[in-house]
Amino acid sequence: MAEAAAHSAHGNEAAVRQVLDRVKADKRTALTAPEGKLVCDAYGIPVPREGVASSAADAVQLAEGMGFPVVLKVVSPDILHKTEAGGVLVGLKSADDVSSGYEAILANARNYKADARIDGVQVQQMLSGGQEVIIGGVADPSFGKLVAFGLGGVLVEVLKDVTFRLAPASKDDALSMLDGIQAAEMLKGVRGGKAVSRDALADMIVRVSQLVSDFPEIAEMDLNPVFATEKGAVAADVRIVVDFEPKQERYRPSHDEIVEKMNRIMKPKALAVIGASAEDGKIGNSVMKNLINGGYEGTIYPVHPKADEIMGIKAFQSVKDVPGEIDVAVFAIPAKFVAQALVECGEKKIPGAVLIPSGFAETGNVEGQTEIQEIGRKYGIRLMGPNIYGFYYTWANLCATFCTAYDVKGHTALSSQSGGIGMAIIGFSRSAKMGVSAIVGLGNKSDIDEDDLLTFFEQDDNTHVIAQHCEDLKDGRAFAEVAKRVSKKKPVIMLKAGRTSAGARAASSHTGALAGNDKIYEDVLKQSGVIRARSLRDLLDFARGVPILPTPKGENVIIITGAGGSGVLLSDACVENDLKLMAMPDDLDQAFRKFIPPFGAAGNPVDITGGEPPRTYQNTVRLGLEDERIHSLILGYWHTIITPPMVFAKLLVEVKNEMKAKGIEKPIVASLAGDVEVEEASEYLYANGVPAYAYSTEIPVAVLGAKYKWARGAGLL
Amino acid sequence: MAEAAAHSAHGNEAAVRQVLDRVKADKRTALTAPEGKLVCDAYGIPVPREGVASSAADAVQLAEGMGFPVVLKVVSPDILHKTEAGGVLVGLKSADDVSSGYEAILANARNYKADARIDGVQVQQMLSGGQEVIIGGVADPSFGKLVAFGLGGVLVEVLKDVTFRLAPASKDDALSMLDGIQAAEMLKGVRGGKAVSRDALADMIVRVSQLVSDFPEIAEMDLNPVFATEKGAVAADVRIVVDFEPKQERYRPSHDEIVEKMNRIMKPKALAVIGASAEDGKIGNSVMKNLINGGYEGTIYPVHPKADEIMGIKAFQSVKDVPGEIDVAVFAIPAKFVAQALVECGEKKIPGAVLIPSGFAETGNVEGQTEIQEIGRKYGIRLMGPNIYGFYYTWANLCATFCTAYDVKGHTALSSQSGGIGMAIIGFSRSAKMGVSAIVGLGNKSDIDEDDLLTFFEQDDNTHVIAQHCEDLKDGRAFAEVAKRVSKKKPVIMLKAGRTSAGARAASSHTGALAGNDKIYEDVLKQSGVIRARSLRDLLDFARGVPILPTPKGENVIIITGAGGSGVLLSDACVENDLKLMAMPDDLDQAFRKFIPPFGAAGNPVDITGGEPPRTYQNTVRLGLEDERIHSLILGYWHTIITPPMVFAKLLVEVKNEMKAKGIEKPIVASLAGDVEVEEASEYLYANGVPAYAYSTEIPVAVLGAKYKWARGAGLL
Repeated sequence: MAEAAAHSAHGNEAAVRQVLDRVKADKRTALTAPEGKLVCDAYGIPVPREGVASSAADAVQLAEGMGFPVVLKVVSPDILHKTEAGGVLVGLKSADDVSSGYEAILANARNYKADARIDGVQVQQMLSGGQEVIIGGVADPSFGKLVAFGLGGVLVEVLKDVTFRLAPASKDDALSMLDGIQAAEMLKGVRGGKAVSRDALADMIVRVSQLVSDFPEIAEMDLNPVFATEKGAVAADVRIVVDFEPKQERYRPSHDEIVEKMNRIMKPKALAVIGASAEDGKIGNSVMKNLINGGYEGTIYPVHPKADEIMGIKAFQSVKDVPGEIDVAVFAIPAKFVAQALVECGEKKIPGAVLIPSGFAETGNVEGQTEIQEIGRKYGIRLMGPNIYGFYYTWANLCATFCTAYDVKGHTALSSQSGGIGMAIIGFSRSAKMGVSAIVGLGNKSDIDEDDLLTFFEQDDNTHVIAQHCEDLKDGRAFAEVAKRVSKKKPVIMLKAGRTSAGARAASSHTGALAGNDKIYEDVLKQSGVIRARSLRDLLDFARGVPILPTPKGENVIIITGAGGSGVLLSDACVENDLKLMAMPDDLDQAFRKFIPPFGAAGNPVDITGGEPPRTYQNTVRLGLEDERIHSLILGYWHTIITPPMVFAKLLVEVKNEMKAKGIEKPIVASLAGDVEVEEASEYLYANGVPAYAYSTEIPVAVLGAKYKWARGAGLL
Repeated sequence: MAEAAAHSAHGNEAAVRQVLDRVKADKRTALTAPEGKLVCDAYGIPVPREGVASSAADAVQLAEGMGFPVVLKVVSPDILHKTEAGGVLVGLKSADDVSSGYEAILANARNYKADARIDGVQVQQMLSGGQEVIIGGVADPSFGKLVAFGLGGVLVEVLKDVTFRLAPASKDDALSMLDGIQAAEMLKGVRGGKAVSRDALADMIVRVSQLVSDFPEIAEMDLNPVFATEKGAVAADVRIVVDFEPKQERYRPSHDEIVEKMNRIMKPKALAVIGASAEDGKIGNSVMKNLINGGYEGTIYPVHPKADEIMGIKAFQSVKDVPGEIDVAVFAIPAKFVAQALVECGEKKIPGAVLIPSGFAETGNVEGQTEIQEIGRKYGIRLMGPNIYGFYYTWANLCATFCTAYDVKGHTALSSQSGGIGMAIIGFSRSAKMGVSAIVGLGNKSDIDEDDLLTFFEQDDNTHVIAQHCEDLKDGRAFAEVAKRVSKKKPVIMLKAGRTSAGARAASSHTGALAGNDKIYEDVLKQSGVIRARSLRDLLDFARGVPILPTPKGENVIIITGAGGSGVLLSDACVENDLKLMAMPDDLDQAFRKFIPPFGAAGNPVDITGGEPPRTYQNTVRLGLEDERIHSLILGYWHTIITPPMVFAKLLVEVKNEMKAKGIEKPIVASLAGDVEVEEASEYLYANGVPAYAYSTEIPVAVLGAKYKWARGAGLL
């Protein structure tokens, strides 16, 4: 069987099904060791040779067939703790040892439990040597089936040095896992050991991942230890836990339905404001003002139980009274009235509801939230929220929110799970003059979530980059699938809050979200090509800087700096952001040296020294852009009287434009050290396509690093 | 001997000296195993028991004395490869085994080399079980003797999980090393193992550290592996490398001399400007303008070869022509003229020279730098630089620099090794309205370095916090000693550039500094109570925020937030900054609940929810300040119409002042999420003693974390 399965990760499903059916019939939650072996055999996962002996002579024959040393283990459904019962003997090296061992085990077992049913003694090839690793499969509440890999023993148990991928994993995924642990070097052979077979390990990972994917009822699978050698990998111990009541799959509309409805919601021709109000301070009033003052050009239908008109616009008692079609209804009424109004939206065939009201799951009103979810499903209404600030779509001049209006058009789409973070996005955007395409509040995510937004932004030509803040992913698997596709086209940046256990506890009291192991998020986001931001400022800085940088054509980064001290800090930042400082070829080194003083340092960083006139920056930057071996530039500027900040900024933009006219575009970021005038120069540079920061060497490099992470994930490098 | 030494870390120095003398006489660089054992014995470092037997009966007696199992090894000067010769037997468990083993070894040896001289058979206690660890001593070019500790095998070799302390280390230092590795948990017993004896391990660390300190010629010492068990620790293998030509000790003036001269330099009554100029654009002109326009009230003596007066001030041809005493000479002349002018300063008995000129070691002119160093030593002139921007001491209205003037008085002293970073300090300070006491450029550090500055700032009442940027420490040991003392009184913050190997390479081409292993800096800075900044912005933010925060009285931190989403991010940041989120006692939880809506989350973070009026912030903050169990507050503000940013900021300052009047002062930091008005509110808060940041949850918590790191290091917590 193992041989037949060896050519495909898919195994003999019928054989596994047969085992699982028996376990289910027995109402057990775990497989026995022989059952585990059968399952492994069916999927071509190598396990030690073994057999069950019913006599000492049998045992000796089996042992001789597989070679010494061997392990003997009692086989009995009545003895759970074999070792405790004296039912396990290891390291038996001869026929004599096996023979007497067999008898000893039987005697021990009877002594331990006189009436135990004893089905024989298992004789197993004893593995040793090589590197011990762990391969496992787990079912995560958000991401579904995952495959895990780590080194055996303390490295996993104490240092938690383990890596995850969505199951099923491809061979490439599996190979990337071998490099994805801190102790990766161990697999290459240390202390005189030989490198293990990467192929064999990756193959086993793929097979385990396929197995746990094929069978939803496999809740946990642990191959621990797996002995990996230069020749192969064998799982010495197999543990499989099953759960025959897998959780319900989340309903997901089709891709086309998501696109169609999200387009109507985000770019509506007509919208209703349920709870529109003329009274200052009311949420329904703020929404109306934002819509009207924001310049929304579609039709607005205020809905109010009594008013005939609100802010000069004809009002209706119910959306059902509105004569025309409505694309989205914005709710600004107390929670208790939402369900009824939502039913009316359903009857009016409105495809989307923006549920600003709070008072649902976040306050413990889970029933209320379930009720509106059911109404949404029944009528096919997509729900945004509840418990949100609303959303902005600048290209339609649309501010469907009670918060401050925002109208600077740009190509960055942002979303946040929390209202506070949404407000921070708006403040930062305004302060940094960052244009956005959309800002969306997701709140309780009763329905619309990050993957719906990604699906919309993917096809929205106004959006070039997507930045999301979230505390949990209700359906991490759906997100990963969509993100993997979208991130190939547009950078996707995520700030995942609740990274730490304390943060996760706070997240849990905040939205009722169960935060998973952060390492799972880390690995799956990376596998999906998502750039992970570590802080709110990073999210905002990446959202601002990543889209204006051109995509690099290669990994070679050079630093050109007027301040040697900045060069050192910029180099540190390159390492921290996985950027590769180009090893400078001799001819290029010579070429740079022509432009810099003899005591300046060529190599990389190119240290042009502080006392240089504008043309030194100009010449070196031009060379950096012109030479095809260089792919990205990091500039360190030092404020001097000879080359003041704005002079530097303008010449840099000039050189950049000159090169652009010749078809040369490379990412350039800049760190400006100097007196306050560097702030204005940084702004000028940013406005002209060079992410530039005053008093920071880290942030510009982190922004470039984020661009590289994206380009690598999208397969562009 | 071991017994005699056991009561003190100092050992039998004469015994060690005897061994080292022999090694020196033999012109060897390493000790033999028996020599290593002698040295260990002399310092009470446990090694396996052993003895040489000259008969099988001898061997049995020895083995019985030390306990089984034992190892037997042939002792013969003629057999180098003992194992190959069949001259080693391990794991002998009984008298019979030892007896027959003895005979077997002799037979094997004779068989291997018939004419070999055989001096007997070594019987050695065989160690196994327990936890393998490594203890070592190294000589670092900057820090001198260090003691190292790590877990044996892959953890040190692959994961570099090792920790260092200055030698000699105290018992407390040694104990802190056991907790200072990633895999610390291993020592507590994992997978059913027992905890090792912390006392025995710490004792061995102390002894090793004392031994390498007592003998400068011990360049490297490696105890690897050491077997640590619950009962003790024994070093199975000892390797000692010696170097009988230890590097020359750096000259260090006495503490009093440093203080006296640094006070004259930093707060001069009279200064000379060598190379003063009336010509715009000259460095000597910028310096003169900064001095005069800056409002310096001491006497200025321009020195110029020809001019009678410069900018209206009488000039002199040489400092020697100046009638009065001069405290410091600021050099603004080309490198080639510096030495001669410096001699004149010496003859004039000027105690300090500020050497702005570049063109010394940083451009390869090492001889030039050595020359001025020698002149400085000869005449007792302390040298600042060369290759610097100069320095500022605001409380004397003194801008002895060619850079932009800076005059905002405050209590933060900053220094930088690089001019660019110095300019960034000035720009940031001006932009953030951060008052400073001094800003000092250290450049090539031919003489005055970080520890001289610390010694000055320690006794300078205008300075409350010291922040330093450096690329290397010429004398890390002196720095650590001074920092350990100073940091008990005033926070010391350091940005160590060149943390990564790429950064270190850049540092090396920049200043010729040999950057050491960053982990050594990490551990020694921590041991010295220095707060390490990870980035330039962190350095600047810590320098600004740490001094205005009162010292916390305990570890209990609470978060009070209007934005649940901020609460999650703030919690993450607490974990990352080693802050302890207080477990909320029931009565306190109830007390908070009285002030917040029923759906708000008490516990910690206290989530007051977003729609609350000012009094909710007021009540909860007041409670947080009043309750003695709470030691620090982190506030998360969410911009709403009900509680606008400035309303929040003002009420917070009110409550803070109200409590201060009652004698209650606790650190408070704030994260403000909202539209741009939060920027003004943050500035207002900062100006009133609350470090506050718009659009960031990480930075305020990092600032509080820095304050805690300091307070812990200074023994205040």
